[in-house]
Amino acid sequence: MRGLGTGISAEAVAALLERVRAGDARAVARAISVVEDDAAGAAEVLSACFPHTGDSLRIGVTGSPGAGKSTLVDRLARSCREREETVGVLAVDPTSPFTGGAILGDRIRMAERLSDPGVYVRSMATRGALGGLAQTTADAVTVLEASGKQKVLIETVGVGQDEVDIVRLADVTVVVLVPGMGDDVQSIKAGIMEIADIFVINKADREGADRVEKEVRAMQSLASRHSGDEEWVPPMVKTVATTGQGIKELMATIDEMQEWLSEGDRLAARRRRYWRERIVEMMRTALLREVRQHGFSQNEIEEYAALVVERREDPYRLVPRLIAERFAVMEEGS
Amino acid sequence: MRGLGTGISAEAVAALLERVRAGDARAVARAISVVEDDAAGAAEVLSACFPHTGDSLRIGVTGSPGAGKSTLVDRLARSCREREETVGVLAVDPTSPFTGGAILGDRIRMAERLSDPGVYVRSMATRGALGGLAQTTADAVTVLEASGKQKVLIETVGVGQDEVDIVRLADVTVVVLVPGMGDDVQSIKAGIMEIADIFVINKADREGADRVEKEVRAMQSLASRHSGDEEWVPPMVKTVATTGQGIKELMATIDEMQEWLSEGDRLAARRRRYWRERIVEMMRTALLREVRQHGFSQNEIEEYAALVVERREDPYRLVPRLIAERFAVMEEGS
Repeated sequence: MRGLGTGISAEAVAALLERVRAGDARAVARAISVVEDDAAGAAEVLSACFPHTGDSLRIGVTGSPGAGKSTLVDRLARSCREREETVGVLAVDPTSPFTGGAILGDRIRMAERLSDPGVYVRSMATRGALGGLAQTTADAVTVLEASGKQKVLIETVGVGQDEVDIVRLADVTVVVLVPGMGDDVQSIKAGIMEIADIFVINKADREGADRVEKEVRAMQSLASRHSGDEEWVPPMVKTVATTGQGIKELMATIDEMQEWLSEGDRLAARRRRYWRERIVEMMRTALLREVRQHGFSQNEIEEYAALVVERREDPYRLVPRLIAERFAVMEEGS
Repeated sequence: MRGLGTGISAEAVAALLERVRAGDARAVARAISVVEDDAAGAAEVLSACFPHTGDSLRIGVTGSPGAGKSTLVDRLARSCREREETVGVLAVDPTSPFTGGAILGDRIRMAERLSDPGVYVRSMATRGALGGLAQTTADAVTVLEASGKQKVLIETVGVGQDEVDIVRLADVTVVVLVPGMGDDVQSIKAGIMEIADIFVINKADREGADRVEKEVRAMQSLASRHSGDEEWVPPMVKTVATTGQGIKELMATIDEMQEWLSEGDRLAARRRRYWRERIVEMMRTALLREVRQHGFSQNEIEEYAALVVERREDPYRLVPRLIAERFAVMEEGS
């Protein structure tokens, strides 16, 4: 037990895990909250969940605001349910760091589905105390996977670096574009070109859908793929999420990619690539926790900040000195 | 000297600093590149620059893509030059993590100004090797300040968490809104409400400018300000950046805020608040550097990633164990 009040005993973790594994929505909600708040017991809950993960297909859905991602994700979730697959949905909004949960309004429509135990929907907006939102999202996915969801849909609100970091954990990344969004979308498209496994042109009944397709094709021939060693060429699917048009095709394309990933070492190779980055990220967070817990008090930091503002300390010398003073790196095996 | 090729000797740092201090654009470019690439000598260059910083006013300009920020920043830079103030401009684009510099196209117009030694313009898109883009931007600002620029304009391409992190370093934050951008902008506005010192409604000749003003006023009355102890109420300025309309008023509003900040401890208090966060951020980066340099080889990380993917290691136990094994926290004074 690491604390009172928010603490969770080993027995409580075991009991919670059992309920999570049974797909109990309230237990899943509780587990994600513990993880999200980085409350005492968070590591224990995640550690308990982890052995029961790895079987879900993680599908990332990203694209400009207003591209209709929520509706699309809603349609995908419904399609999965029609096949009797269980689904977890995480709607992640890094653009609301202060107010939190601005995306939630859009989710009311999906909330009705909460009565279906085969679906779990959650919005995430707050980054964890120490790690970033990408890490908190990954931890929430761990809980969802442990709850036995066959598909986990991770939807982001926009297409910035945060979003790219978030969808990195996906096995399949769907990038949603729309016709006629102008030059700003051009620059955005350049940034996420490399992470797309499937392109969706949503609102394809609008004028300009063919032009978007041509532009993406042109960019594809220029861009170097992040998965340079693989031969998957991102297909393009046209949808009208509001009417459901093209959703069947999109589902089939996702299945196709899943099939392709299952051949040989492909899926594992992707996941290793992801974990390489994530382990380093987790180390960074763990070290920062050490800094906060043992290294430096808030008062000390405030004093240093004051000295820096007065130019009595040079932060570029101060920080390395402090780190050298307080942290010793031990050689391997010592 | 920390390396060959990219390394910089103490003499070279001193020589570079001298040229930076003289405002030599090529020296500034070289120094920022060293910092941006986190090349050997980066810490030395920053440390040499640091004592010569603190006198510039740092102005952050953020807002949705397409709000006309580039044009606005261009106008502000021109206005500064008309008063014979020197200006540095950093255009930061966190949405182009892979391709880099997508924003650069917009800057060609500004490039003509490079022949004026009183202006220095630079686009930044790549995050540093270890720190984030916010840290790299802050380091570039350190160089610009050392070069004696009286105003430093930091422009971001969008309004996500990255952008919020980036503009945190500003003394004055200008948030640019435009009429008629719909509901998506609503959620974005909520997120940056707390960081705005000045609101600009650009393209104010368009329909709906008054409505935007009313909405912001309504949100202002609801939102709690980040600077709760201060009495600055963010004013609102309407501009049409393409014609220059309202720029004079915006400059006057920035002057007003600068004046206000100069009273008592206000500016120093803001900067202390910033440095508190930044020192912790720098510690995190320094620790990560330790991890990379001394703690764990890339091969080790790859092995761990493989074990995690195979569920033979639990990352939530592995990482704390590795950190405990390799890093010792020393008590203060020991």
